[in-house]
Amino acid sequence: MALVVQKYGGSSVANAERIKRVAERIVNARKSGDEVVVVVSAMGDTTDELIDLAHQVSPLPPGREFDMLLTAGERISMALLAMAIHNLGYEARSYTGSQAGVITTSVHGKARIIDVTPGRLRGALDEGAIAIVAGFQGISQDTKDITTLGRGGSDTTAVALAAALDADVCEIYTDVDGVFTADPRIVPNARHIAQVTYEEMLELCACGAKVLHLRSVEYARRANLPIHVRSSYSDKTGTMVTGSMEDLPVEQALITGVAHDRSEAKITIVGVPDTPGEAARIFETVANAETNLDMIVQNVSTEGTGRTDISFTLPKDDGPAAMAALSKVQSSIGFKGLLFDDHVGKVSLVGAGMRSHPGVAARFFAALGEAGVNIEMISTSEIRVSVVCRDSDLNKAVLAVHDAFELGGDTEAIVYAGTGR
Amino acid sequence: MALVVQKYGGSSVANAERIKRVAERIVNARKSGDEVVVVVSAMGDTTDELIDLAHQVSPLPPGREFDMLLTAGERISMALLAMAIHNLGYEARSYTGSQAGVITTSVHGKARIIDVTPGRLRGALDEGAIAIVAGFQGISQDTKDITTLGRGGSDTTAVALAAALDADVCEIYTDVDGVFTADPRIVPNARHIAQVTYEEMLELCACGAKVLHLRSVEYARRANLPIHVRSSYSDKTGTMVTGSMEDLPVEQALITGVAHDRSEAKITIVGVPDTPGEAARIFETVANAETNLDMIVQNVSTEGTGRTDISFTLPKDDGPAAMAALSKVQSSIGFKGLLFDDHVGKVSLVGAGMRSHPGVAARFFAALGEAGVNIEMISTSEIRVSVVCRDSDLNKAVLAVHDAFELGGDTEAIVYAGTGR
Repeated sequence: MALVVQKYGGSSVANAERIKRVAERIVNARKSGDEVVVVVSAMGDTTDELIDLAHQVSPLPPGREFDMLLTAGERISMALLAMAIHNLGYEARSYTGSQAGVITTSVHGKARIIDVTPGRLRGALDEGAIAIVAGFQGISQDTKDITTLGRGGSDTTAVALAAALDADVCEIYTDVDGVFTADPRIVPNARHIAQVTYEEMLELCACGAKVLHLRSVEYARRANLPIHVRSSYSDKTGTMVTGSMEDLPVEQALITGVAHDRSEAKITIVGVPDTPGEAARIFETVANAETNLDMIVQNVSTEGTGRTDISFTLPKDDGPAAMAALSKVQSSIGFKGLLFDDHVGKVSLVGAGMRSHPGVAARFFAALGEAGVNIEMISTSEIRVSVVCRDSDLNKAVLAVHDAFELGGDTEAIVYAGTGR
Repeated sequence: MALVVQKYGGSSVANAERIKRVAERIVNARKSGDEVVVVVSAMGDTTDELIDLAHQVSPLPPGREFDMLLTAGERISMALLAMAIHNLGYEARSYTGSQAGVITTSVHGKARIIDVTPGRLRGALDEGAIAIVAGFQGISQDTKDITTLGRGGSDTTAVALAAALDADVCEIYTDVDGVFTADPRIVPNARHIAQVTYEEMLELCACGAKVLHLRSVEYARRANLPIHVRSSYSDKTGTMVTGSMEDLPVEQALITGVAHDRSEAKITIVGVPDTPGEAARIFETVANAETNLDMIVQNVSTEGTGRTDISFTLPKDDGPAAMAALSKVQSSIGFKGLLFDDHVGKVSLVGAGMRSHPGVAARFFAALGEAGVNIEMISTSEIRVSVVCRDSDLNKAVLAVHDAFELGGDTEAIVYAGTGR
């Protein structure tokens, strides 16, 4: 008898029909003898509707109350799912994040899980019940207030519960059949990947792959817990995220896949005095504005001027705050100007095999060059190479790189609509 | 500085606009120096929408999950109300029934409050905050599961919190200006009542007055806590429910008002063997079907037959269950037939003064007779007389009785639409 944690996103439980279908899938797992814990997101558009209501009463709702409001969404979906399972003759009990023992920091809207005390869930399982848990939410250790985990929160809830319950696997049900060598909406012959290491998955997530959230993969790696990414619309085998790069066989595949990201913008600080400490002051300023930098490039000093340009990328949403913070320090740092560019895209090639194959980056740049894609910034890790280009060149770049490394399969991938939280 | 508990029903917080208006009213109370705790129901139709969703996934949802689902309604309204208050520059924190310390029995859907431990609310008040509490819900003492209190639950939450916090008054905001001598929709010149004793209010509630729920008045009487019934749409003075009949002055008003009720049905058991114990068996059967009887009438035996008829009234909704239970025992008890009549109405006259005025009942019956209303059943208490008649005669009966006791005022009462939970 295995213990399985399953997570279903908002599109999987968007209406009564889908909830009933998910209930059947859960009951099938229970029937096969497994103990089952289910983490569920809010139904379809519920969260957006609640956000809309909040903004109707207040332009800037306090975080504590905003979290209280949003957590109503999972309360609804989890209770309905438990009812649907009951209706199939199986015992199911729903639990809020707080009841399930998801203890977090007290930063509303982006709390982090500190501890999980799943005593009530364990008790429900021991009595033969299926436990349904609200994703995305917890209770603050200090204030005992309700918190939400921010983006990708339900994935993280599922992995954290699976780790705390010593589950055999955490199944993340989503609207795609797993991880592909590229986004099938851009690359029709993108190949399905049966298994991928934590490290590769982390790089893919960081480079724009949306199938899993980075935090949940980090959590799973620490707990050495396999994540099984599957479609809630099919019975295909999905993708298993497990194992470390260190354990990969020598004859491993060179490249895992191509990721892309349209969610970033680029800020360029023009004419920064090229003296020690100026760059540090700039990045301190940006960090204080609570923005997350991704790639950073500093040009060599333009000869004779003693000045240089610094560019970095960051999430588009963080752009206004970063620009405002930098404007304030322009005179004290003494740089000449600020440029904001939100028409950039990032294409990345990820693969554990590239550690031992120095030619990969060269082939990557050559493919982009042949496709006529101009490279604006470059960053690399041991198992990844990324470039920033015009967003209008992004699809072309993904296709070219995917082709150059012969990642394609024989059949077209199937794409479903919708996203989870 | 007084401590005030205010309760707002679903129609008072039906949309963002109304929530903002209620927030202003709350802030005004806080500004005047009072400590304020607010109990709030779910927004407008939210509860009905959630019930509808539940029935889409399951014909008979388990009580635990049904309560989990419904309590999402108050979670939404209370968070929005707290946001709206914040937006006016005052600190407000929302609390679920569980967080507010509302400890209940574990009967889902109709839990009773066992205890209230308002430590977190007291703490919030001590820090100068306004506490917003979800009405209608609590946490089971035994199972630690979320419960709901059933009909009138939010009124009961408000009174229970007010008692536990030793509040000066519990203000129940509703869609009418308080208690009237009759329903102003039937009697246009019904007079507003400024003050009424707990006993009279209990009789009025039991006889169909909907402005307060019986349980909350019982709770307030035990705690000797004044209830102030007011309109959330006006600044009128409302009705104060306080004081005991025993303390009334001798020159008290004879009659408080006329109540009516269309929510009951009448069951008649025809030809019951008139031997000891048969009536007891019948009422045991009905009680086992979880129905609440109201009036009961047993005729004298028809001469020579040794048989009698027994009639009783009960809530219409309980009718099918009671009829089914009685049918099962027809042959063993040996009665001849069962009649179900849901076209009955009840009119009641309530007044503490009638204790010392034996002529009241006679005048009541005379007024009905003159109006051509046929009386089918009669029941009385020390301060009340009620009759059952045809439902089509009910308005006529209310008007006639109201006139006969000269209860009318000079101005027409104002009526608003909508109801609370």
